[in-house]
Parts: sequence; C-alpha cells; structure tokens
Amino acid sequence: MEPSFGWRHLVEIGLAEDIGHGDITTRAVLGESDPAAVGRIVAREPLVVSGLEVAEYVFQRVDPALRVTLLSADGGALGAGDPLLEVEGSSRSILAGERVALNFLGHLSGIATHTRRFVEALAGTGARIVDTRKTTPGYRYLEKAAVCHGGGHNHRFNLSDGILIKDNHIEAVGGVREAVVAAEANRPHHLVNIEVEVDSLEQLEEALASGAGVIMLDNMPPSMLRAAVARAGGRALLEASGGVRIETVREIAETGVDLISAGSLIHGARWVDIGLDLL
Amino acid sequence: MEPSFGWRHLVEIGLAEDIGHGDITTRAVLGESDPAAVGRIVAREPLVVSGLEVAEYVFQRVDPALRVTLLSADGGALGAGDPLLEVEGSSRSILAGERVALNFLGHLSGIATHTRRFVEALAGTGARIVDTRKTTPGYRYLEKAAVCHGGGHNHRFNLSDGILIKDNHIEAVGGVREAVVAAEANRPHHLVNIEVEVDSLEQLEEALASGAGVIMLDNMPPSMLRAAVARAGGRALLEASGGVRIETVREIAETGVDLISAGSLIHGARWVDIGLDLL
Amino acid sequence: MEPSFGWRHLVEIGLAEDIGHGDITTRAVLGESDPAAVGRIVAREPLVVSGLEVAEYVFQRVDPALRVTLLSADGGALGAGDPLLEVEGSSRSILAGERVALNFLGHLSGIATHTRRFVEALAGTGARIVDTRKTTPGYRYLEKAAVCHGGGHNHRFNLSDGILIKDNHIEAVGGVREAVVAAEANRPHHLVNIEVEVDSLEQLEEALASGAGVIMLDNMPPSMLRAAVARAGGRALLEASGGVRIETVREIAETGVDLISAGSLIHGARWVDIGLDLL
Amino acid sequence: MEPSFGWRHLVEIGLAEDIGHGDITTRAVLGESDPAAVGRIVAREPLVVSGLEVAEYVFQRVDPALRVTLLSADGGALGAGDPLLEVEGSSRSILAGERVALNFLGHLSGIATHTRRFVEALAGTGARIVDTRKTTPGYRYLEKAAVCHGGGHNHRFNLSDGILIKDNHIEAVGGVREAVVAAEANRPHHLVNIEVEVDSLEQLEEALASGAGVIMLDNMPPSMLRAAVARAGGRALLEASGGVRIETVREIAETGVDLISAGSLIHGARWVDIGLDLL
Amino acid sequence: MEPSFGWRHLVEIGLAEDIGHGDITTRAVLGESDPAAVGRIVAREPLVVSGLEVAEYVFQRVDPALRVTLLSADGGALGAGDPLLEVEGSSRSILAGERVALNFLGHLSGIATHTRRFVEALAGTGARIVDTRKTTPGYRYLEKAAVCHGGGHNHRFNLSDGILIKDNHIEAVGGVREAVVAAEANRPHHLVNIEVEVDSLEQLEEALASGAGVIMLDNMPPSMLRAAVARAGGRALLEASGGVRIETVREIAETGVDLISAGSLIHGARWVDIGLDLL
Amino acid sequence: MEPSFGWRHLVEIGLAEDIGHGDITTRAVLGESDPAAVGRIVAREPLVVSGLEVAEYVFQRVDPALRVTLLSADGGALGAGDPLLEVEGSSRSILAGERVALNFLGHLSGIATHTRRFVEALAGTGARIVDTRKTTPGYRYLEKAAVCHGGGHNHRFNLSDGILIKDNHIEAVGGVREAVVAAEANRPHHLVNIEVEVDSLEQLEEALASGAGVIMLDNMPPSMLRAAVARAGGRALLEASGGVRIETVREIAETGVDLISAGSLIHGARWVDIGLDLL
Repeated sequence: MEPSFGWRHLVEIGLAEDIGHGDITTRAVLGESDPAAVGRIVAREPLVVSGLEVAEYVFQRVDPALRVTLLSADGGALGAGDPLLEVEGSSRSILAGERVALNFLGHLSGIATHTRRFVEALAGTGARIVDTRKTTPGYRYLEKAAVCHGGGHNHRFNLSDGILIKDNHIEAVGGVREAVVAAEANRPHHLVNIEVEVDSLEQLEEALASGAGVIMLDNMPPSMLRAAVARAGGRALLEASGGVRIETVREIAETGVDLISAGSLIHGARWVDIGLDLL
Repeated sequence: MEPSFGWRHLVEIGLAEDIGHGDITTRAVLGESDPAAVGRIVAREPLVVSGLEVAEYVFQRVDPALRVTLLSADGGALGAGDPLLEVEGSSRSILAGERVALNFLGHLSGIATHTRRFVEALAGTGARIVDTRKTTPGYRYLEKAAVCHGGGHNHRFNLSDGILIKDNHIEAVGGVREAVVAAEANRPHHLVNIEVEVDSLEQLEEALASGAGVIMLDNMPPSMLRAAVARAGGRALLEASGGVRIETVREIAETGVDLISAGSLIHGARWVDIGLDLL
Repeated sequence: MEPSFGWRHLVEIGLAEDIGHGDITTRAVLGESDPAAVGRIVAREPLVVSGLEVAEYVFQRVDPALRVTLLSADGGALGAGDPLLEVEGSSRSILAGERVALNFLGHLSGIATHTRRFVEALAGTGARIVDTRKTTPGYRYLEKAAVCHGGGHNHRFNLSDGILIKDNHIEAVGGVREAVVAAEANRPHHLVNIEVEVDSLEQLEEALASGAGVIMLDNMPPSMLRAAVARAGGRALLEASGGVRIETVREIAETGVDLISAGSLIHGARWVDIGLDLL
Repeated sequence: MEPSFGWRHLVEIGLAEDIGHGDITTRAVLGESDPAAVGRIVAREPLVVSGLEVAEYVFQRVDPALRVTLLSADGGALGAGDPLLEVEGSSRSILAGERVALNFLGHLSGIATHTRRFVEALAGTGARIVDTRKTTPGYRYLEKAAVCHGGGHNHRFNLSDGILIKDNHIEAVGGVREAVVAAEANRPHHLVNIEVEVDSLEQLEEALASGAGVIMLDNMPPSMLRAAVARAGGRALLEASGGVRIETVREIAETGVDLISAGSLIHGARWVDIGLDLL
Repeated sequence: MEPSFGWRHLVEIGLAEDIGHGDITTRAVLGESDPAAVGRIVAREPLVVSGLEVAEYVFQRVDPALRVTLLSADGGALGAGDPLLEVEGSSRSILAGERVALNFLGHLSGIATHTRRFVEALAGTGARIVDTRKTTPGYRYLEKAAVCHGGGHNHRFNLSDGILIKDNHIEAVGGVREAVVAAEANRPHHLVNIEVEVDSLEQLEEALASGAGVIMLDNMPPSMLRAAVARAGGRALLEASGGVRIETVREIAETGVDLISAGSLIHGARWVDIGLDLL
Repeated sequence: MEPSFGWRHLVEIGLAEDIGHGDITTRAVLGESDPAAVGRIVAREPLVVSGLEVAEYVFQRVDPALRVTLLSADGGALGAGDPLLEVEGSSRSILAGERVALNFLGHLSGIATHTRRFVEALAGTGARIVDTRKTTPGYRYLEKAAVCHGGGHNHRFNLSDGILIKDNHIEAVGGVREAVVAAEANRPHHLVNIEVEVDSLEQLEEALASGAGVIMLDNMPPSMLRAAVARAGGRALLEASGGVRIETVREIAETGVDLISAGSLIHGARWVDIGLDLL
C-alpha cells in the first residue's frame, strides 16, 4: 500500500476499545507468566487477502518487540488452512492484539473476496467493476484498497477528486446540457472528464451532445443499457449504476457498458472467517 | 444512547475523507448559489433504525445552522418510504453531510435489522441472542448499540469487563478446573460470574464441578447441546457458540440453552438501503 | 503493566507543558555543548515504586537515543538512597525529561506507598482494601495500577464494568428490593454480582433477601458493621465504605467485613520524594 | 481564568475513562426514565474553591442542554454545607458528569485550600509563597491557577519562561560567576532577571557580585537564611527553597527572605470533600 | 468556503502557542477589569481579502460570547483604511484573539493580493494562472483558497487527484510515450486528462503523439513556448512552468499557452499589513 | 534544536494533505516496481539553512527504513549547488516525502536567509535584530528558530513569557506611569524587565521615570530615535519598532538603539529555491 496516514488512528481506537484496562482473564488465570509463543493467522475458508499491513501494525503497536512475518500478500487467493501471517514473541502481547488484527483482516478480506466474485463474473467482457462512496466512515482508504486487492477499480475517493453531476445539480440549473456546460467552464483544468448521471435515453442524448466524458446510466434495465451503448457509439464512457448484484452483473456487462459501479462490493460483503492458532 | 465519546471522532474522520477539499461539482455547476432546502432521510426498504444520533451530529458538525428533526427512534421498525429524519437549511451543507450520514445509518441500521430477524426467530424460547467482540475496529460501541436496537443483548465489551476462560487459558494451566479455580482466586470482587469455554461433555462436567457461572458450549451440534442442558440442570448459564446462522438459531434455542452468541449479528449484516430526498 | 493506551497522551502533554519552547537556561549557560551523562533516579525516602514504565517512556519520547535501565520493579519497597532507574546519553535530553519523569514517579509511588500502609494495617485480617472512582481525571488507569503496586485491589474502573446500586437509584424505584430485582432482570448476563449500597440494618436485610451479591455498608460505625456481619452470615460479600483512614482501618477490618473501600488511597496520598542524580 | 486550551482535553479523557460504554446500573435499574433534576455541588468541609470553570465545562460536554449556575467563585472561602454550583436538567446527564466534575473540584480546591493555609501563616511578613514545577503532568496550568486561587504566586511555568541556573549548570561551567555571566550574555533581552541557586554563603557572595536578580537559597536553616538576608542587603531578591512545610513556613518568612517556594503547595495537598446533592 | 476540517486545527495550535498560560501583561496592568469593547480589523494598505472565515473562527474559539460581523468578503479588493470585520464583546477576549486572527489574515490576504497582480497582468490573454504543491505544510487548503480569492486557479491539491508524469517517471520507463501509455492503461477512469512534463520540442511531439491531455513545458524561453504552441495546434492544453515572475508572466501568456503555473503565487507573497483598532 | 513537540504535528498534517490517498501517477506508470535510490537535497541559490531536523523527520515518518544523512547544519551558509542532506532507500518513499520536506526547508531557510541580510547590514553597530509575534499560526517555534539560524534574536514567544505594555493598556489605566507601576506591583517575580511602548519623547520621559527596563520606540524617524537615545542615557534598553526594512535598518541601528524588532524577518521573507536530485 502507498503511505496513508488515516488508518493508523483506527488501530489506536480499536486497541483501546478492545483492551480496556487490560485482559483480566489472562491476568487472573495466568498471573505474571508470559511464555514466548508463535501465533499463526490462518484462513478458515477460501478467501482473497486484504489488510496485512494493518494487521502487522496492530501487533507492532501492542508490543514493538513482536516479530511479524507476512506469509501471503494483499490480493492473494488462499484456501482454507492457508496462513496469512505469523507473529512471534510474548504470548500475552499476541493475545492482546489478536482480536483487533483479526477484525481488520476479516472485514477487509471479506470485501476483497466479495469483489473477486464480481471480477470473475465479468471475465471476458470489456467492463470494469468500480466501487462508490458508500464506505464505512473512517474506512474510505482501507475499503477502497480492499476493492483493488479483489481486482476491482476505484471510483471517486471523495467530493473533490472528480466531477459527477447528479440529478439535483441538473434540476438546479435546468437541464443536463446546462449543467455540463457550467461544469466545463468552471472545472479545474486537470479534471477534464466530466461525468453526468442520466436516467433516460433523452438525457443520454443531451449528455452526449454536451460532450460529457463519462455518463452514468442510473437504474436502467439491460435492454435500455444496450440501447444506450448503441446510441453512444463510443463517444463517452458509459457507467451502469444502481442495484447491481452478483447475480445480475454479467448480464449488465454484456450490454457493452464500460463501467459498472456497485456499492455492494463494500456494503454487501460479509466478513470472511480468519483465526489465529497458537503453535 | 448513553453518552459515549469515541464515535464523534469517526464523524470527523468520515467528513474529512468524504469532503476532501470541497465538493467541486457543486462549486463548478452551481457557483455560489445556495438556496435553502429541506432534506428527508427515508427508508428504501423495511428496516430497524439505528444511528439517528450520529446522523444528527454529522449535520450539526458540517453546519451548526442546520436544523435536524428526528422522525423516528432507534429501534423502531420502518417500512419502505418511511422517514427517519429531516434536515433543513443550506442546500450545500445538506449535500455535504448527506453521504456520511447515510453511510452511518445504512451500516448501523443494517445490523439492527439483521439482529431483529434473529430475535424474531427466538420468539417464545427462553434464549437470548448476544453479540461478540467481532466488531469493526472503532465501532465497538455503535455496533453493540445497534444490536440492542435490534432487540439483541451484549456480551463483553472488551477484555476487561468480564472473565471468559478460553481454550488457550485452559491449556496453559492444565485443565478447566485449574483455570476456574485460579480465576476465582484472583478475580476482582465484583466480577463473580466466571465464564469458561468447553468443547466436550467431560469438560462441561468439570466446569460445573468448579462452580463456573456461565459455560460456553463451543461448536456443539443440537443433540449435544440438549445433553449439556440436561446435565447442567440449571447449575450454570449455558451459552451456545460457533457458526450460528439465522437458519439454525431456532433449533439451537430449542435445546434449552440460555444464551446464543453470534458474531454474525454484526459481521454478517449487509447495509440497508436508505436515501435522502430533497423536498 | 498490561498494555493501556491512554497514559502515553499524558506524557505528551506533560512534556509540552514543561519544556515550552526549550530550556533557555541550559541554552544560555551551556550553549551547544552536550556531554554524555548518566542520570540515576533515586528514592530520597522509603517508598513503594510505581510508574517505572511511564518514566522510561518519558525519556524515550524526549530522545529515542537515551538508554534506560530499570533498577527496581513496580511494587518494590525501597529505602532512602535506593535507585529506581538509570538513564544514559545526552545530558541535555536527560535534563529535558527529568522533571516530568520525576513528577509521574513521585505522584504514582506516593499512592503505592500510601496504599502499602493500609495493606500492612490489615495484615492477618480477612479484609481486602479497594479503591474507588475518586481519581485524578486522566489518571484512572495509572492510579489504580499504583494501588495494585501497593498491594491493594481495584473496585470498578468505570460506570460500565459493574453494577452498583446507590441511594439515588433506590429512591427512584422505591426500595432496595425493587432496585435489585430490576437490576437482576436487566443486567448483562456476565455481570451477575449486583452490589447495592445500604445505610441501615433494615436495608441490609432487604438487600440480603433480594439476593444481592455484594452489599456496601455506608458510613456505619464498627459496632454496626459487626452486627451487619452477623446478620449476613456469609450470604453476601460485605464492603465497608465511608471516611476510612489509616488510623481506623484495622478496627473496621476486625468487624469481619470482606472489603474496605477508601478513596483516600489515591486522594489522600502525598507525593514521595524522588530525585535524579547526575553521575 | 485566562483562556487556556490544554485542560479541555483532560475533561474529554476523564469523561471517557469514567463513563466507559455507559452507566449500566442506571440503565438496568431505571430503564429509559430520565426525569428532570437539580443537582447542587456542596462543600462537605471548609475549603477554598478552585476549578469551577472546569466543572461547568464537564457538564456542558456531557450534555449541552444542562444549565449550570455558579454559586461561588474561584478563590472564595466556603464553610461546610455551602454550595459551589447548581446544575439543572436530565438526571441521567447530571449523574454521568457528577464523578468527573467532583474529581476536578476536589483535587483543585484541595490545592487552593492547602495554599491558603500557607498564605495565612505568612500574614504580616513580607514574604510571598510560590509554587514549583512539581505538578501532576497535564495539570500544570490548572494546578498553578489553584495556587493563585489560594492566594499564592507562581514561579516559572516551564523551562522557557525564566532563567534559573541550578547546581548542574554551575558545575558544568565552573562556578556561579561563570554561569551568571554566560546567562547574562546569552539571555533573551526581555528576561533580565536571572535567578541562580546557591547552597552556601560563599556562593551567595559570588552570585551577588555577578549581578543575579534572584538568588535561590537551597535548603538553608533559618539562621543561615537570616545571615544571607543581611549580606544581600537588598541587592537581589532572595528565595528560600527546600522542604518547606506549613509548620516551618512562618519561621522561614521571618528571616526576611522575599520568596518561599514550596512544591508541597501542590504535591502535599490532599483533596477536599465535595459532594453533589440531588434536590 | 466549502467546509474543510483541517484548518480548524491550525487555529487551536495557533492560539495555544500565542496565548501560552495567559496574557500576563493585561493581567498585571488591568487586573480583573474587562470592559466591553468593539474591535475593527482594518486594511493598512490596498489588498485583496482572504481568510475571513478563519479569523471569525479564531474569535469564536477564544470566547463564544464574542459577536463577529463581516464587513468585507473573501476576494474583495480594499483600500487602506477599509474595514474587514468587526468584533464586539469582552476586551480581554478580543485582545487574546487579535494577533492570531491578524496573522491568518495577513498571510492569506498577502497571497490573494499577490495573485491578483498576476491575474491583472494576464488581462486579455487566454492564459490562466495556476498554483502548485509548493505550500506551507498544513496550509494547502487555505493557501489554495487564497489563490482563488485572488482570481487564480488551482492545480492539483495532492498526489492523488491528478496524473502528472514528471522527468523521473519518464526516465524510469524509458520515454514519454511509454510513460503516457502506461498511465493511460492504469489510470482511474475518471482521471482521463493525463499531464506530462517535457523539456524539449522532441519530447513535446512524443507527448502529443501519445495523446496526453495536458503538457507541461518546463523552463522554456518565450520563443520556444511560441514554437510549442504552434506545433501543438490545439491538440493538448499547454502549461508553461518554471521561474514565472510578475515581470515575465505577460510575455509568457502572449506566447499562446493555456496555463501558467507559478509556485511564487504562494511562496513569493509577503504578508499585507492589517491591524485591529479598538473603537 | 531543543526538543519541541508541536511541529511534529505539522509534519503529519503536511504529509496527509500532500499524499492524499496515494501517488496515483507513480502507481499508474511504475506499477509495483520500487528500486532503491539516493536523493540529494540541494540549494539552487545561495541561502542560509533552517529546518534540517524537520526534513529528516518527514522522511522517517513516511518510511522508517529510509536512511537520512545531514550534509549541512542549521545556520550554515550554502552556495548554489551545495547539498543539504541525502536520503537513501525506496524510491517511492523518497518521492512521497520530497515535496513536504522541500516545502519546510524552502520556507524556513527563506526566513534564515532573509534574517542573515539584516544581520549583515547591522555589522559593527551595537544593535540586535529581533522578531515579533507575527508568525504563521502553528509555526511560532520553527519560524523563531529560523530567525536564530539566520543570526537574529527572539523577542517574546507568547503573551505569557514577557510583559509588554502597549498603547491600549496605557489608555485603559490613564498613562505610561500608571501602567508601569501597576505592572511592577503585579508581575511574576522572575519577570522584572517590564517593557513599555511609547510614541513620543514625552512618553519616553515618563517611561524612564517609571523605571521600565525596555522601552519600545514605536514608528519614530531616525532623528527622533537619536534624540531618544540621548535622553535615555543608558537608563533602559531602547527598541526601535515599526516598518523596519532591509534598506533602512542600518540607518536605524546607527541612531544607537539597542534592539530593532522587525516582523518582516518572517512575514517579508520569500522561500529560497531548494530541490531534490535523484542520483
């Protein structure tokens, strides 16, 4: 992963909320004894890995003396029983970080695994699957990285790194053309690729005529998407959007659209099962 | 909700990561115009509400001049089209907070809605459904509150507010009895209810003989759970744990256990669909 | 100490407030010269140590190149002149951290030392001395750890890790029995040991009849405590509370109560005298 | 109080550590009921007030809808039973803030009350009592403000707002005179009043000859202090320092020194007893 | 300004570092007296305003009871003596916030004023002046907003909201064409407008042939820029970059380039003179 | 530099705002390749260095595996082409930190270089050049350190480490004498050197008679400064203030004043040109 500074803070909060004022069970049962141990984090079902660097940081933050070895890579596909990473050192420190490390890995690998299914469903079509801004607050960067680990692509990260004209903008200025023209006149020079959302073929025509670079086709059935592809004739990138599911994604891709955006890559994913074995 | 100070920080991070250096689309298309508006947040499918207070805070944090009115309550069951809250004021401020507010509500109400299904499946049995420590790091409090809004109950919040002896503790001291005795001798005086995890009926007998207050029956099939209930004869609370799903939870409850813990209340929930309509 | 994440922040604030924009005296008198030095932190009176890990962190935070060696352990009893720790490296860095490290050690060792006196006063009785929630805001974890280093025990850490019914709860629901019954019905399943505060033998009877696990006897004289012990007959843990002082604690213990809680372990402690010698 | 930004952070940490994930007793016993209430914070022994603004902020931070009325002023002397402040609103919010507000008030008023005793002991002498840098880390500003509320004065706030040459500086440059001369040559122009610590009358002579503005007489008995006053003849301010106690402070003042510094104003103070009554 | 959350933190730090532990001069001279006052912030030379919202926040943060009225708008051109804003309330609070508010206004209005000169120099040409990533760390958003207030435009905000291929990228992959092709294949779909830096007309041809949307002409003299414009023939946006000064900017613009980037809009600006008058 | 804890936070913010969610250009063009590299930071014009320790920290914060070697020292005068520091390791990490490190160095060395010119202009006179509180909020410590690196001196760091009576204080109490007398009576004992601002020779006389230690001569022409020096006759330090520029500073110094304060040391400095070469 590229450097990003936000997620380290989630590790701090996560550890604080899980450890509280200490593991009273271990203290009561084991007293001060703290033998050296090796913990291995293992997939308990087939999955695509995401979050290794975060898990590594969790253990380092709990105890800088722990030694972590990565046994897989973000984006790798593992089978049940395959190891993700190994951590060696104080058994108490390993247990103190275990739950938080697994929670990050289960959540992020769940997204990567879910995305991989969409990617496989699109194999051989020309369409890319992309995410949306529907992410768990605080996790924008990590969840979008998990989509990439799954083989998907990222849409805008936030409101300032892309122009996407939505229905409320169109309504406010009186039409698709007016909105695109205004955006074109006022956009930052390096953001040439104006995207506009349309919900009818009429609006599509207007958007094409206005010179929009990407056109989001909102909640259109496959037949209508197919008609849109025909009309556009390559003049703009077309993005299908709205209620995309794993069962329907291939049919949508086969209409010839360039992009399919699906919030459910992230918000429809369940965690995958990952555990820690003490060796 | 009771006061809790952690989640406000997630609102800050969430807004920063979504707004970036400003909504460049709105700036380019609408310029400085900023008419007053009313936004209504609405359920787009049947759901159980959670996160209203967080959503309210999001809008207040974006713009203290926005006026928010709650139109539902955490824990309330809504139908498609029912309103959750209304926000009135600057249209730009409403749009700036929209995505983050909806992301909190979709995530948390998803957990409440999912939990409600488990609760309904248990109707008429004596069993309580409880959560685990498998929560999204940073969201421990909010996700556990969502479980309560769905009608579920909370297990430990963290490693320091309950004693739960697991297999690794048992192994380290040589047996269930040894672990319970050590915990009993060293526990804080106000945490009398020692819980111990067992995976066989022999361990169950040992746990009962040691005086454990709660016994977690790990990954046992219904027939074995039933046998465990018979042997315990009310001497301890019994908690069924491991791979609990909505399809199996009633059968488990009917074995007579007191508690059923399910991480999937939280990590198996998908977001529910909630949107904002500008009136 | 178990990992705890809050106190590191106090070190940051403490250093910032003490160093300001630098040690202008040292800069003016010594210029850029910065010879290597060894500083030894030494007890200037008999004391029980607490806060070694914090002091070590102070020096590491000021200058990661400093080498710290612990010469004692939290909970250890030292005589005047005995060393606590040694720090080696840049003399300017040692002086920059000196005051903050000593302030933590003086404050926390003061609490451990004060607690030890109570523990010694109870020798041979069956009573435990426990602390309360009267702690310096921000220091809950460190001050309660200091009580343990002195040989005392901890009562609740906060409002969410134990049920303690007080007079205002009793008043609100109309009686001890009503309060205990309500708490019993609504408590989290792992917090079975409900504690209730009573101020008369009548209330004690009601509490015993309601099945409370711990009963706090508020501000009762020794004779009344003795009567309470007799009536309880072992049916609940009894905790004496209110105005406990080092002069009176043994007489209280000899009444037969199980627990004695004293906020003064923490708020009545004065700092002990600890200094740093440059060798 | 002048604006200061550090202490608000202590309020945040203090509330988080005391409330945890909520007051489970109140939740279990009282359910959702939350009647309006009035709480009055009252002195339970004679004391000098400090920390009112902090206590007010605690309640505002817990619940902005609480109304706080100050019934006393920082620095005011109260008798047992006298009120400090009143807070009105949700009874749950009042109870949620109670302990933290009282902990600040008990700690800070304890320092003000302790300082007042020293001030009274000095009545009629020309000496001022001043504090030191021995303060609880994080509390530098609040504890020094409490000293002022008690009638004392502040010494340096930190290493950068005054020049104070200590034994280790003197040793490093070879003498009192060398140190004062170096400091004089390199001091910031607005800090003319160089202070130097001496432990003999010979060093005092050297300091006077060097032109130091303040001379700290370290650990000298009263007879020696008297001799020092005679020799100085008003050429510099003289500060008595070291082991000053309430029993000895007047004798020290009567030697004619200008300033008496006592870390024990802060680190020797015990909390005063302050409680909250629900009306 | 759009909501942005970063700069509020600079206000906190700025106030803390300026106020320290309070305004000791005011305390010593005026004691507790604190008459109501009106402060007016006034331009002491002709300038373009930037930072009003920040200045307003400074006063609100010092004392929520202060009332601030804006008497100008960001981007407005003022003459010497014209007012920017008025603040009314406690004279001590006004003085406590004065310096920090003026420091923000002087710095940011300096940038807006400096940028306005460049904008005026370009009047009638087709070129836009844009900023760079050379900004004071922590001030990226505020300084780029100031450029807009001056009439300039913004280039990339950071490394993730635009593709800009520089010499080191070109060298690493072996040529302009290789770099553009790789970027085209791997870019996020909404960032179509790839920019590439070239330093010769040969590289320019290669960039045009590769289909780059924006081409940065690095450190070229006017004659070479003119040749580049001729060769490009409108196939890409051309950006002149490198050592642009107010004396040379018009000559550069007249070569026909579309964009001129100048770090000196920000790093070459001096503060403008703004003061506060107590009325 | 002495330890100071504030500026590290600026590094965090600076990196976060510059890196965003990663360097998408490098990712798109170079993929995962990340060869080892050596970067050398080099002066591109003659300058005085300031900020080396900050630049070093920037690279360490981006990637702890980078090795940084300082090739110059704060305060050193370099020629065009001279190296400041070298950084060795991952090329991606070097590029990720480059812009932020250069922005700190360009800004701070700009101040040191600008200050050096004033210092050279004063050579042979007895006057010191000092800064003011006109600093970029958040940069008080770093910018004042840069002034020292340039050979200048520091005035007050903030409102609490020196007494400086201004016109508004004088007006409030009715005269220079009244203000100085009040300050003298109430000042902390270690801040004896009261400074007062005067704008006429009459006020100067009053200030001298009151015993002020430093007198700020506000906006006086050289002839008036000379008269002031004559009248003061060494009874107080005299500080010339107001509109001091590099063109006028020597003439001011030659009037015989002791101190010349110039906000423009900091707010009139432009950045110096510093770049990073990949070797």
